[in-house]
Amino acid sequence: MGVVTDRRRVVRVREGARAARPDTLAVEEPLMVRLVGPGDLVSRARPLGAVPVGGVVPVGGAALPHGVLPGARPAGSTLTVTMRTPGDDFDLVAGWLVSEGAVTAREDIAGMRLCPDEDNTVEVALAPGVEAPRQRAFATTSACGVCGSDTVVEVRAALRWPVARDAVTVGADVIAALPDLLRERQRAFDRTGGLHAAGLFTADGEPLYVREDVGRHNAVDKVVGAALRDGALPAVGTVLQVSGRASFELVQKAARAGIPVLSAISAPSTLAVDLAEECGLTLLGFVRGDSMNVYTRADRLR
Amino acid sequence: MGVVTDRRRVVRVREGARAARPDTLAVEEPLMVRLVGPGDLVSRARPLGAVPVGGVVPVGGAALPHGVLPGARPAGSTLTVTMRTPGDDFDLVAGWLVSEGAVTAREDIAGMRLCPDEDNTVEVALAPGVEAPRQRAFATTSACGVCGSDTVVEVRAALRWPVARDAVTVGADVIAALPDLLRERQRAFDRTGGLHAAGLFTADGEPLYVREDVGRHNAVDKVVGAALRDGALPAVGTVLQVSGRASFELVQKAARAGIPVLSAISAPSTLAVDLAEECGLTLLGFVRGDSMNVYTRADRLR
Repeated sequence: MGVVTDRRRVVRVREGARAARPDTLAVEEPLMVRLVGPGDLVSRARPLGAVPVGGVVPVGGAALPHGVLPGARPAGSTLTVTMRTPGDDFDLVAGWLVSEGAVTAREDIAGMRLCPDEDNTVEVALAPGVEAPRQRAFATTSACGVCGSDTVVEVRAALRWPVARDAVTVGADVIAALPDLLRERQRAFDRTGGLHAAGLFTADGEPLYVREDVGRHNAVDKVVGAALRDGALPAVGTVLQVSGRASFELVQKAARAGIPVLSAISAPSTLAVDLAEECGLTLLGFVRGDSMNVYTRADRLR
Repeated sequence: MGVVTDRRRVVRVREGARAARPDTLAVEEPLMVRLVGPGDLVSRARPLGAVPVGGVVPVGGAALPHGVLPGARPAGSTLTVTMRTPGDDFDLVAGWLVSEGAVTAREDIAGMRLCPDEDNTVEVALAPGVEAPRQRAFATTSACGVCGSDTVVEVRAALRWPVARDAVTVGADVIAALPDLLRERQRAFDRTGGLHAAGLFTADGEPLYVREDVGRHNAVDKVVGAALRDGALPAVGTVLQVSGRASFELVQKAARAGIPVLSAISAPSTLAVDLAEECGLTLLGFVRGDSMNVYTRADRLR
């Protein structure tokens, strides 16, 4: 578990008066994700076999297939660098791999570890035959031009799970209660006011995973990664509640995890609605008190 | 000017009753930014010289040095694909190039145009000797490991303008008024509730540029790009007000534009404060009514 909050000196101005005091802030630090071969999860600084593999965290308890090479990208590649709140880093990396469409089951990840020699670096080894994600900036492009409709159809075509056919129904009273349930579980928000949260709930409103991060995308990746590591994907019959707005990217993350219902406290964008419609995902926004907007697949709301 | 809002059908649930009606949402669409040679800004679909260069938007009225090749990256490269709210696309691209550290003056951009054959694509030509930005995911990395302190020092070292030496002072009453001034100028927010905003103001609170976007980073890029295109960088003596939180990335964008004061309605992260400290930028947060927190360089607040 990383350091989620830290203190900085602040000058508070209230009604014209100033007072210097320490303030608690949400921690933001870079995280580098590096692709390695499974054998590399033993420290490269020492001869292979000379040290126990204690630093390695097998995903879901699976044994590590040592010495097997990963997919097309060469071992040692940096997959991404992201700014995130430390803590739940393995969840974040696993969920990011799901969101990028690279993995769908815990067995797709051979192992992960915090790099022993370098801060803020997670090394991840993929199972044989699993291809590392393409670089993010170009993930949605074709040779010429981009438009929202093409993007939406592309994402839909690449989905591994039929979210549209998930027959779950959720009570409006359950949805109405989720923002408060999420907030109650945000341990760091109350101290900082600066953290987004995402929570995966059953259709009865039972919390499964709740994660926080300065980035709202990271919070969702952490929740999805936690589910993956438990062998719980596709997340059939669940509801994902997020603390902010619903963008295209959040709908994509939910759909790729097989989550049939996404509920946001604030507004969705047009492309979020279009993608939810295309994927058959129920999208709710402005969930406040007992009022809410249902943008797609309202048939799931009881 | 692109379409900033659009309508979608929504089912509103209020006190147990449902009503279907159209709802106004913030538009989100992908934007592809493609690097071209200045000569390529004439449509490739027709022979060069056979058409007027009417579609080309010279930056700040500068003439286009036709036929000159851009920097190290080959013409035709996709620089980035980002999700954004259409409108002010040239501002967005120009500001993104500033934020990436690639350009500092309008003369650094030879020209931009909306691609005539492809939706949501801006072609940009850089002036001779101006190097295109490196790919984003790896911008902060060195060969081994990353940490917040390294990142902060790296950004500080790469700054072109001495933000720390900007002698501007701002009244606390001016800062207190900025959130309302920003909100008043958010034309699309009132209709959607789903857009972030950024505004650049003088130290007396006079608005210079206000831009909206579904992404808060994009809103800042649009403001910075508008200033660049007016030849107004470094933005000495100004205050940037943003509608959300202050992350590392927003402080970096402000510092790279030479903006000495960044004011956020909500919380900053630790790394935002650390970078502001390192760059000598005044960072304010939780600006609400006449109360506010000053995290760095409080000497600029009167």
